[in-house]
Amino acid sequence: MADYHEMWAGLGLDLKTHDMVLEIVGKAYQDIFLSQKNRPKGMSYFDFVVSEIHGLRIKEIMDAKAEGRKVIGTFCVFVPEELVLAVDAVCIGLCAGAELGFEEAEKYLPRNTCSLIKAAFGFKLAKVCPYIETTDLIVGENTCDGKKKAYESYKDIVGNLYVMDLPQMKSTEGRALLKAEYKRFAQKLEEISGKKITVESLKKGIEIANNKRKAINRMAALRSADPTPISGLDALLANQVFFYDDPVRFTGSVNAICDELEARNREGMGVAPKGSPRILLSGCPMAVPNWKVPYVIETSKAVIVGEEMCTGERGTQNLVNTKGNTVDELIDGIVDRYFQIDCAVFTPNPSRLEHIKKMVKEYKADGVIHYGLQFCQPYQMESKIVEKELEKAGVPTLLIETDYSQEDAGQLKTRIEAFVERIKS
Amino acid sequence: MADYHEMWAGLGLDLKTHDMVLEIVGKAYQDIFLSQKNRPKGMSYFDFVVSEIHGLRIKEIMDAKAEGRKVIGTFCVFVPEELVLAVDAVCIGLCAGAELGFEEAEKYLPRNTCSLIKAAFGFKLAKVCPYIETTDLIVGENTCDGKKKAYESYKDIVGNLYVMDLPQMKSTEGRALLKAEYKRFAQKLEEISGKKITVESLKKGIEIANNKRKAINRMAALRSADPTPISGLDALLANQVFFYDDPVRFTGSVNAICDELEARNREGMGVAPKGSPRILLSGCPMAVPNWKVPYVIETSKAVIVGEEMCTGERGTQNLVNTKGNTVDELIDGIVDRYFQIDCAVFTPNPSRLEHIKKMVKEYKADGVIHYGLQFCQPYQMESKIVEKELEKAGVPTLLIETDYSQEDAGQLKTRIEAFVERIKS
Repeated sequence: MADYHEMWAGLGLDLKTHDMVLEIVGKAYQDIFLSQKNRPKGMSYFDFVVSEIHGLRIKEIMDAKAEGRKVIGTFCVFVPEELVLAVDAVCIGLCAGAELGFEEAEKYLPRNTCSLIKAAFGFKLAKVCPYIETTDLIVGENTCDGKKKAYESYKDIVGNLYVMDLPQMKSTEGRALLKAEYKRFAQKLEEISGKKITVESLKKGIEIANNKRKAINRMAALRSADPTPISGLDALLANQVFFYDDPVRFTGSVNAICDELEARNREGMGVAPKGSPRILLSGCPMAVPNWKVPYVIETSKAVIVGEEMCTGERGTQNLVNTKGNTVDELIDGIVDRYFQIDCAVFTPNPSRLEHIKKMVKEYKADGVIHYGLQFCQPYQMESKIVEKELEKAGVPTLLIETDYSQEDAGQLKTRIEAFVERIKS
Repeated sequence: MADYHEMWAGLGLDLKTHDMVLEIVGKAYQDIFLSQKNRPKGMSYFDFVVSEIHGLRIKEIMDAKAEGRKVIGTFCVFVPEELVLAVDAVCIGLCAGAELGFEEAEKYLPRNTCSLIKAAFGFKLAKVCPYIETTDLIVGENTCDGKKKAYESYKDIVGNLYVMDLPQMKSTEGRALLKAEYKRFAQKLEEISGKKITVESLKKGIEIANNKRKAINRMAALRSADPTPISGLDALLANQVFFYDDPVRFTGSVNAICDELEARNREGMGVAPKGSPRILLSGCPMAVPNWKVPYVIETSKAVIVGEEMCTGERGTQNLVNTKGNTVDELIDGIVDRYFQIDCAVFTPNPSRLEHIKKMVKEYKADGVIHYGLQFCQPYQMESKIVEKELEKAGVPTLLIETDYSQEDAGQLKTRIEAFVERIKS
């Protein structure tokens, strides 16, 4: 890796802490990812991406900025990347997956706040996230109470926050609100980029985003094979990188991996022995470098065959209709797609349960592990219903409630091993 | 008190547990309320109401039902009583303020759920709330994540739940949603009551609700005197009974107390020595018999002079405009009033902070105690901003996070006494 310290200093990072963070993440990546056996060769792309996670990618973004392109930071799969691409801006996911700067964060947030939100504050306050520092606009959104209310103080910390309202029900009024907010966001993007969204530019944006989804969904489908050709950890990593890599390059790299996985499936080659207990992960998103639970699962003689989460199929399923002769018609197509996202902030949210059941069937999962971040009320609340309904349908289900600390790793290991034993029998 | 066991058995209550609950509440009322000195004589009305809390009032409601009137249970100040009154139905607040049936409730709810929500489940599951059993319709509403998601399982427990959607922002779309939902609710009320809402019946409903608010606000205003003529505990009790008493009788009784308080103010007579440290309570609602914090405050040589909460001025401020020639115009007036409620589920929510500051000034408060229920994210999140802004404005502020247990009573006492010392100096 080149020496990026000057660039990081220019972005105002705390170099000492940041060096430490990179070292810890690098070490974790080594232990968790590179130690895996039978990895697809194509994963070397992601190894490279992670090794340059705060290096080359930031350099690219800085170059894009120098060319006059804008950088839009996001925290949620409800922010339509299509619109961002339509003004030739760069869309970057800012969710953070490590316990960093929490003490500073708790000056703004109650102790009883989920790790994902605390990390968003912590990474900014500890000055360790170059992505945040490159943004021209950060988009918050009224999903859960935690995020919705946290943005009220986050705005003072970052100075460039824009908040998008979201509905709570999938009603006529709910759809109208989403459309109004997407149109307001489109205007805002035009304003800061100085570029007009045209039918052509929006169609191109839709195509890029659709292709990215098609590639990652292709990868997902290939995991239905037994043995599964790719580990859950590697698939999760692809889903995580989905949010901040160059979308066209990402699509190509994932498709190349898929070609390899197809060959593996033809040969019956996999990452774990045929017949290994197969687990579907469901619940809260896992941002980089939050790999704790998948690592515990896949070192407990089980394989993960799907992720029903924002960093997974909840975020990537469904494409945008490319038909439309006006920007407004295309935005309608975008609204139609995003309005299907079955985040637990919606009430009721029956399609999420249906999606979980469908994934269990398609990927031949033997059981579901529901991953709930502590203090994430929407998913914690919904997990009770998910567990009840899945068990009723004969799908063994384990509810996990955890945070970003490593303190419960031993306890999780014990519970997950017992669950794997249960689904084996 | 008459023997109501037959009525309670008819409502399906668990008589043994219920007897125990009444005994505990009766004892607490004795210790907390009846032990106070210099109480207004008019409070004897509320003593009677509490002594008949599950007796005479339930009898009245059952008599109303026998006459064909419907009973609507509510959990939130966003449910417009005016509409309920317009179909001659009885409106009853169902929020519960005691730790009861929590173990059963936790089969449906995560452990990390606020006591208010757990109690709503607990009281039903433990079969100790006759009010719930009298309802023809229970109205839930999409306020916080906790309630919104909890209603998804609550509906299976009660069988007669109706959910009202609410906006998260005070935008044009937000107001349109509130109006659409109030109109849908009006239709639902017409449907179950078999009565049509007319301009006349709605004007009458508005008048009754406005008069109730005028009376309780009149009481609030009289507390600006030093010495304050009524204790915070007694004023809170009036605010609590506000939700389930007969509205016309309630209005008369509160106005009678106000006459007495006016006389007291003229004579400079109060419940605590002139110059006692004056505290404004702000935050989460306190449902009967949740009297823990006010009791600790008022036995720590301080007096409470106002409640910025749903069981207080957040719920009672602002009247509905009675002008309008059509039902739709009158509903617009209702929407205008309720849309001003500054619940922390809204983002941003600046008018709440303004209201707190206004109350501090009007009631000459020396400090603010912010009461946050554990795991209530909206108020916990907002409390950080409230504290910062109030302290900046020179108003001493204490943040309290508690639940329905008595375990922290000693610790609260220590913190509150220290706070009272701080504001005295």
